[in-house]
Amino acid sequence: MGIVVQKYGGSSLADADAIKRVARRIVEVKKSGHDVVVAVSAMGDTTDDLVDLATGVSPLPPAREMDMLLTAGERISMALVAMAISDLGFTARSFTGSQAGVITDSVHGKAKIIDVTPGRITQAIGEGHIVIVAGFQGVSADTKEITTLGRGGTDTTAVALAAALEADVCEIYTDVDGVFTADPRIVPSARKLDNVSYEEMLELAACGAKILHLRCVEYGRRYGIPIHVRSSFSQLEGTWVVNDPQPSDPSQGDPMEQPIIAGVAHDRSEAKITVVGVPDKVGEAARIFEALAEAQVNLDMIVQNISAAATSRTDISFTLPRTDGQGAMTALARIQAEVGYDKLLYDDKIGKVSLIGAGMRSHPGITSKFFGALASAGVNIGMISTSEIRISVIVDEHSVDDAVRATHTAFDLDADEVEAVVYGGTGR
Amino acid sequence: MGIVVQKYGGSSLADADAIKRVARRIVEVKKSGHDVVVAVSAMGDTTDDLVDLATGVSPLPPAREMDMLLTAGERISMALVAMAISDLGFTARSFTGSQAGVITDSVHGKAKIIDVTPGRITQAIGEGHIVIVAGFQGVSADTKEITTLGRGGTDTTAVALAAALEADVCEIYTDVDGVFTADPRIVPSARKLDNVSYEEMLELAACGAKILHLRCVEYGRRYGIPIHVRSSFSQLEGTWVVNDPQPSDPSQGDPMEQPIIAGVAHDRSEAKITVVGVPDKVGEAARIFEALAEAQVNLDMIVQNISAAATSRTDISFTLPRTDGQGAMTALARIQAEVGYDKLLYDDKIGKVSLIGAGMRSHPGITSKFFGALASAGVNIGMISTSEIRISVIVDEHSVDDAVRATHTAFDLDADEVEAVVYGGTGR
Repeated sequence: MGIVVQKYGGSSLADADAIKRVARRIVEVKKSGHDVVVAVSAMGDTTDDLVDLATGVSPLPPAREMDMLLTAGERISMALVAMAISDLGFTARSFTGSQAGVITDSVHGKAKIIDVTPGRITQAIGEGHIVIVAGFQGVSADTKEITTLGRGGTDTTAVALAAALEADVCEIYTDVDGVFTADPRIVPSARKLDNVSYEEMLELAACGAKILHLRCVEYGRRYGIPIHVRSSFSQLEGTWVVNDPQPSDPSQGDPMEQPIIAGVAHDRSEAKITVVGVPDKVGEAARIFEALAEAQVNLDMIVQNISAAATSRTDISFTLPRTDGQGAMTALARIQAEVGYDKLLYDDKIGKVSLIGAGMRSHPGITSKFFGALASAGVNIGMISTSEIRISVIVDEHSVDDAVRATHTAFDLDADEVEAVVYGGTGR
Repeated sequence: MGIVVQKYGGSSLADADAIKRVARRIVEVKKSGHDVVVAVSAMGDTTDDLVDLATGVSPLPPAREMDMLLTAGERISMALVAMAISDLGFTARSFTGSQAGVITDSVHGKAKIIDVTPGRITQAIGEGHIVIVAGFQGVSADTKEITTLGRGGTDTTAVALAAALEADVCEIYTDVDGVFTADPRIVPSARKLDNVSYEEMLELAACGAKILHLRCVEYGRRYGIPIHVRSSFSQLEGTWVVNDPQPSDPSQGDPMEQPIIAGVAHDRSEAKITVVGVPDKVGEAARIFEALAEAQVNLDMIVQNISAAATSRTDISFTLPRTDGQGAMTALARIQAEVGYDKLLYDDKIGKVSLIGAGMRSHPGITSKFFGALASAGVNIGMISTSEIRISVIVDEHSVDDAVRATHTAFDLDADEVEAVVYGGTGR
């Protein structure tokens, strides 16, 4: 029997009863003969409470100290989970990210894991212990400073541990049953996916599906770790994120009949900036994006139109996280004279709707069907961007729900209509 | 200008405002040209809250995990203090006990510091930073496990850092003005001591004065670190704990006129056990104390009387922390047949009152004056124990306050009467 890595988020560790329930779940897996390594997030609202404490003493706390502060949250939850396991008659050892050998770069607040050296973990496993690891944190390779991986980073901790320990599976426990074809709060008929490919899951995560941390999926794909997203509140199978999802029951059909579309994602966290009247000369666009890069702005979609050929001027629009909006506008204003553009437009009343599916590679007509569905629902398209397995559109913020519902129905994703095409069986 | 080490306890770090006040205080010292290293406890009731969380998941949490849990408290407060300092325009670096090089033995929950290797601290000082260190914690030399030093351990962290860094002074900030001749809640006329010797302070701490951790004073004496106990709520000079207190103003008199008595301490945390009718044979007492040692019972006073010569039997009484009472009674009951004693008596309605002063070495008559004062106050003496600079008596729990007051007055310690004999000047 191999190693099972599990991840429990804050909502699964909200209070003493929740922690005891998680401990029972962990012990069941150990009893079944597996070695178990668990990555935990901070309990419930602990991280928010710690951020509030920081804001109380300093409006702009240094990132190093913020990481030192926030990592206390996982330290508390990991010790409590270990205690609850011990109370069930099993032994557990908790380790901080640093002790667990989670080595990162030195970017405080959003560090990237560059290596995992799990010597203490494998030793503890060898001694028969269940191992609990603080998620979301590591130690920098060069400066030996404590770092954090950014919100949702515990998913990444779990899958990185699974890779380093050559685990059989990485189970991500959450408060929903798995990955859905759309957000069930918007589309009540959304269907749980039994399987989804890494690349589809990457696009879903990048396009606003909050169920898995983007870097977690990247890591899983790179090392070929099967990720099982499931609920900590039930024993149901969740969604398997794997390399090439196959129907497990051949009578359900061959791969050709797999659904073309994995799901519809949406994202209301972006804003759009338009730089109006940029002189149509070589190097102007480069200067603009150079200024944005210097301001550490993360860009998403970029569109350039010639507004009127006669004027030799062009408009450049791009989307970015709303939280970067202020910084981007300031950086652009600073180079107005140099670039010689006319003005800046800022719009944060937008939303992004994305259609994602590996099958769209080999199926023509997806785009026209998507846009047709949006038109029928009276949704106006602002910007368009595509990848091989994704089409995203920017729409008015208030049209997002209509756009998601219309698209979900147009592609036969609603639960009652698609019973025949769901991936069969109980996963893997 | 040398290094100043400061310690702030939980009551000085109760909330954001308190933390900002502490930060201003730290920055003042830095501005005056000193390098500053600060040991902090957990904020306010954090430790109690964490203990409650642990009790919620397990009635008997493993000591290793308890240490992992509790050390989160100082991690939070140290990061917040560093942030508050940064907000004042100075740079600070916080370090856990492990990062600060506080090396301990591996006894979880009451580890002892065996070495301090402050490489990261001296580097940070060299780079001009104020250094904040998590008190109360360290890392074990052999197993590299996180340990805690027991309640009050941050005092010891501070003085151990001061020794390792060859600091000029270790300032212990608390919520009272210094060390008093008696507990001011019992004796309102108690007087703050300007100076007290290490050995007197050791006896005071051992006899129930809660102002300084016992091991902190031992450490200070061993390495000759002047300890300044003072209030974080005022700028007043507190009490200096030093090797040989000298009046700083010769006109106030020579050392011969120093007060004989430093103070009166009391302790209500002990219980008394009497083993009645022990056969008066060689080895019987040894067997009793062997059994108590095996049960990890910490003994304080021990008294043996022959009850009646004709019976060849004796009574043995001893005092111990009430928390050890259950364990001691169980251990003794187990050896009753073997030893052949008659019965056990348990009394936890006792208190200990101690008179402490280096001057009593050279002054006869202290004992008779002490006992005379107790008799006049109608206080009955149960047991007596003495050291070179201390006399302790066990009295009825309800007589403790009367005994302390009567003794304090008898030795002219009350503030109004002793103005002429206080150590002069403003300390050192």
